[in-house]
Amino acid sequence: MFFGIAVFPQKHVQDLVNSYRKRYDPHYSLIPPHITLREKFELPDEKVEDAVQRLEEIAKQNKPFTIQFHKVSHFYPTSHTIYLAIKDSKPLETLHNQISASLDPIPMPYDYIPHLTIGQKMSEEELHDVYGTLRLRQFELESKIDRFHLMYQLENGSWSIHQTFLLKK
Amino acid sequence: MFFGIAVFPQKHVQDLVNSYRKRYDPHYSLIPPHITLREKFELPDEKVEDAVQRLEEIAKQNKPFTIQFHKVSHFYPTSHTIYLAIKDSKPLETLHNQISASLDPIPMPYDYIPHLTIGQKMSEEELHDVYGTLRLRQFELESKIDRFHLMYQLENGSWSIHQTFLLKK
Repeated sequence: MFFGIAVFPQKHVQDLVNSYRKRYDPHYSLIPPHITLREKFELPDEKVEDAVQRLEEIAKQNKPFTIQFHKVSHFYPTSHTIYLAIKDSKPLETLHNQISASLDPIPMPYDYIPHLTIGQKMSEEELHDVYGTLRLRQFELESKIDRFHLMYQLENGSWSIHQTFLLKK
Repeated sequence: MFFGIAVFPQKHVQDLVNSYRKRYDPHYSLIPPHITLREKFELPDEKVEDAVQRLEEIAKQNKPFTIQFHKVSHFYPTSHTIYLAIKDSKPLETLHNQISASLDPIPMPYDYIPHLTIGQKMSEEELHDVYGTLRLRQFELESKIDRFHLMYQLENGSWSIHQTFLLKK
């Protein structure tokens, strides 16, 4: 099965982001707004329990934290993605790094930049247009992060939940 | 916020059910295939932690179990819903009853019948048509159930995950 690991910001952030995703993100109906900690990876059934134990350990070693979303940014030309950028994203990078070190390595084509996608797979023109409109907008969004989730992908591309891990340090 | 409590059957069951839901269930993109343990209910922020503790207790008192889906059934005329019926659904009823007894009461217009929805909000004609086609089909589907999940609803009607509870007895 294919798994992914993600953090969901609090509801008020998800609701705001969905108002953009509805128009600009083809994954809108496949998963709620999230910050990816680990991209899609394959895990045979017999390795799931071990991965869960390792994630449990990582969750125990990390404290809950708060993140701020302060501006809109993009990954163009690497990918046609627009996202809410995260101020002081160090705790997310720590989680990402610990997870990467603990589970089997997967190809990482880009450096890890924690982000909350607003739109993706847009045409170049649409991307510039939307970014042009949103880049001057001030965002003062904050979310407590006290957990992450192991998700698995269904045949239709949507993501179902396997397990929550509470940050408990 | 509005919360709900559900069980997700294993992936092979979700994939099969989604092949029907895609056509017959307007909630197809709002939540993966699930068995509801507690219908949508409101919980103020300050009561969430207490509810989580109670659910944790219930999870600890229940053992993992296996369910069989053996046939298609419907709730017509009470509601225009078609579903996979569950053989020996006692452990689900137990979970439902314990959750109902532990959290604040909510209106229960119908008796609790654990089910996995295939289609809903269909026209009467479509319901009879689909049921007529599926009623003779044999299902031999099985799923291990070793956890349930507390979900919350976003503004767009979709459901995001709050926490997983592992059956641990």
